[in-house]
This record gives sequence, C-alpha cells and structure tokens, in this order.
Amino acid sequence: MKRIVLLRHGESLWNKENRFTGWTDVDLSPRGVTEAREAGKALREAGFEFGAAFTSYLKRAVKTLDIVLDTLDRDWIPVRKSWRLNEKHYGALQGLNKSETASRYGEELVRMWRRSYDVAPAPLSPEDPRSASREARYAEVPGDELPRTESLRDTIARLMPYWSCEILPALRRYDALLVVAHGNSLRGIVKHLKGISDEEIVELNLPTAVPYVFEFDDNLSYAKDYFLGDREVIDKLMDAVARQGCR
Amino acid sequence: MKRIVLLRHGESLWNKENRFTGWTDVDLSPRGVTEAREAGKALREAGFEFGAAFTSYLKRAVKTLDIVLDTLDRDWIPVRKSWRLNEKHYGALQGLNKSETASRYGEELVRMWRRSYDVAPAPLSPEDPRSASREARYAEVPGDELPRTESLRDTIARLMPYWSCEILPALRRYDALLVVAHGNSLRGIVKHLKGISDEEIVELNLPTAVPYVFEFDDNLSYAKDYFLGDREVIDKLMDAVARQGCR
Repeated sequence: MKRIVLLRHGESLWNKENRFTGWTDVDLSPRGVTEAREAGKALREAGFEFGAAFTSYLKRAVKTLDIVLDTLDRDWIPVRKSWRLNEKHYGALQGLNKSETASRYGEELVRMWRRSYDVAPAPLSPEDPRSASREARYAEVPGDELPRTESLRDTIARLMPYWSCEILPALRRYDALLVVAHGNSLRGIVKHLKGISDEEIVELNLPTAVPYVFEFDDNLSYAKDYFLGDREVIDKLMDAVARQGCR
Repeated sequence: MKRIVLLRHGESLWNKENRFTGWTDVDLSPRGVTEAREAGKALREAGFEFGAAFTSYLKRAVKTLDIVLDTLDRDWIPVRKSWRLNEKHYGALQGLNKSETASRYGEELVRMWRRSYDVAPAPLSPEDPRSASREARYAEVPGDELPRTESLRDTIARLMPYWSCEILPALRRYDALLVVAHGNSLRGIVKHLKGISDEEIVELNLPTAVPYVFEFDDNLSYAKDYFLGDREVIDKLMDAVARQGCR
C-alpha cells in the first residue's frame, strides 16, 4: 500500500488579520508552529515513514514541513520545492483585508471572487511592488506562466503538471510521500483524485495542519482517503475555515 | 564573481558533554540555534543571495541551514542533502566521551585517532545498534560504500565525488552557493581548494557557524578565501576548537 499525505500549512500571521495572502510570503504565527508540531506528532503516532516531501516556495509551507520532518526525526529526507504548489494568486487583493476589499470593489464582486471556480480577482500590474515578476525566486518561471491573478481553475491548471510529473511518479520509488501546501493548491489535488466537480470543490474547506491521507494501490490508482484525527474536531475546524473563506 | 560559503553547523547538544559524535544524529543546542541565526544575519548584512544550498543527512547541519535560510528570507531556494557531506564516521568511539575512550583504548591510541590523517578508530560491528547499515536513511547507499569507521582520508575520499559532480558544477547556474556541513567534511573541501597537505589539514580547526567564503573566477577556479567577521574573534574560536579536538 502506497500513501500520500496532504497537509495545509499551520496558521499564518495574516490569518488573524483576515487579509488576503495568496503569494505574499507571510510567516507562521506561534499557533501555526504549534499546529505543525501537533501534525508531526499525529503522523509519528500513526507510524508514517516518509521517503520524500514536496512543498511550495512560500515559507509558511516550507517551515510547516521542516517542523513536521523534525518531529518525525526525518530531517534528512529529500525535499522538493515548487512555485506550482503555491497558494492561489489573489491578484490585486493580496495584502488587503476583507473590509478594505469590500469598500474598494463592492461586496458582490468580492463574494464572486471568493466563491467562483472560474473568475479571477483583478490582476496586479507588472509595476506593482507585489508583482511576482519582480522577485528573484520566480526568475526561472517563464513570463507567460507567472500569474498576475488566478481563478481556482488557473491554480489547478498550473499545479497539475507538477502533480502528474513529479509527485505521483515519486510514489513508485517511495511508499509514503508528504505534500505540504495551501488551501487552494491542495483543493486541486483532492479534486483530481476524487473527481469532484467544479461547483463542489469550492465548498471543500481543508483545516490547517490536519494530515489528509490518500491511499493508492500498486498501480498508483487512488483507493481511499481519510483525515488523521478525531472526525468531530476536524468537522468543526472545516466549518471554521468555511466561515473565514479559504485564502 | 562566483562564491561558495562553507558553514560548520552550530553547537550540538553533545559538544558540551565532550562526546564523539560522528554520524550520531544529535540536535543543536540552544546556543547552536543562536549561532545559526547570527551566521544568517552576518550573511544578510554582507548581501549574500544564495541560489541553492547543500547539507548533510544530519539534523545539526540541516537545522543550521534552515535557520540561516529563514534569516536570509530565502526559505524557498533548492536544498540538496547528501550522506557524503556527513561528519567523519568515528566508528566505535561514537557516543563515548573522552575519559571513557581513554580508559577503554588508552591515551596514546586515542590521540593518534584524533590527530592522524590516515588512521581510523576501531570500527563498529554490523550488529552494533549504532551501525549506519541499520538505518533507513542510508538504505540507498551501496553496502561497500557505507563506513563502519573513517580516517580523515576516508572522509575526504567519499566527499570529493559529491563536491566535484554536484556542488561545484551548480556554480555555473548560480552565483552563490551555501554548504552547511561538519568540521571534517568541510576540512576536505578546504584541503582540496587550497592544496593543503595531509599533515597540515589536521591542524585546521573551523569554528562553528562562522561563514567561510570562497571566491571563484568565471572558470570556477579558486581565487581567494576569507572568514566573514572579526578576525581576532575568529582566531579565538579556532583556538578553542583546537583545544577541544574536532569531533
């Protein structure tokens, strides 16, 4: 039996401030650090021995992964990072809080940006200091692939080549892989594996730092999935994320 | 101008206890964490923008690297880990403190093991619980390459293919690389680059967590080297390491 565990990073410093984060490189909050350590303990108790791990270019995911691996005493395993696992790019909303956003763009538009599968927020201009094209970390990404904003569909489209060509094939070599990423990039993987519709996937609200286990048979076909932990607690966490909006 | 920075990990929990560490996976001490952060600050002030980093399979090195990259706000760069960057394997001495070692093997033999370039300590037996062949992390290393003990010569011999085939060539792609490793594996790199003799290299005592900068010309030939920081302070640190013995 082969397994891939999906893990959304722990709480970030902007979670409390209720700001759209997207590709902004915000650090974990102290609570996020604790959440990551708890996730590591749960995985250790369940006996996971990961052969390799994958994460995004954003420190809230990288640091969650580092803490989990250290808790598992597996600091030494190979870690691959990719911009393709980054959170959904929130365009011009990045850095704004909900009330600023509503007063600038109107309640109706903001609700659509947050709830729809296909509609992307207003894009960042190339001159905007928040633009990814100004950052050394994205210098190797072809300009036409580097987003200025994204719908959930766009996020999933740039994620899937990495899933299919890098992550899933690594399961031939290793029995267990860990993927630490973000609410929306992980939605893409779950949608693909479970065949969830465009309409339904926007309703899936992954809790932070709760290990989500996917089992595969020897042909690397999806067999089953489950969260690690108390189902009642997890349902409450998912409800809380839904009320916040998945950012 | 191209640069590679060599960094010995921060103080480990066994430094104080004066035990031979080698391949034992001992964590950083609180002081080691602080040292790593200070190294990151020094590199940040000097304007280093690393494109990639390399480290060993041992958590005192991996965690030093993670802290340095986080201090530099470069958590996202690619990190490669290899057992070839591990500390010298100290064989049957691993876990023993100096006085235990002296009473078990005699002062004279211990002095030779610590000071000679060619002589390796007594080997670990394959059945010894400390044996690397019992650990999942070394499962992919061919059995005849996995050491049971090492002289400094042996350490350097298993390190050099990784330096020549992985680290140095990465300098074609990136202007600056960071290598976080151990007293003896870093001795190997310094010996090679500066053409230091077998007799002299055992006298080189690298201080923990002081960035050691090597500059290269466009043909990747060594040009010059210097420590980052106050030379007088660094000389004192090197003296202190010499008195301890490089473990």
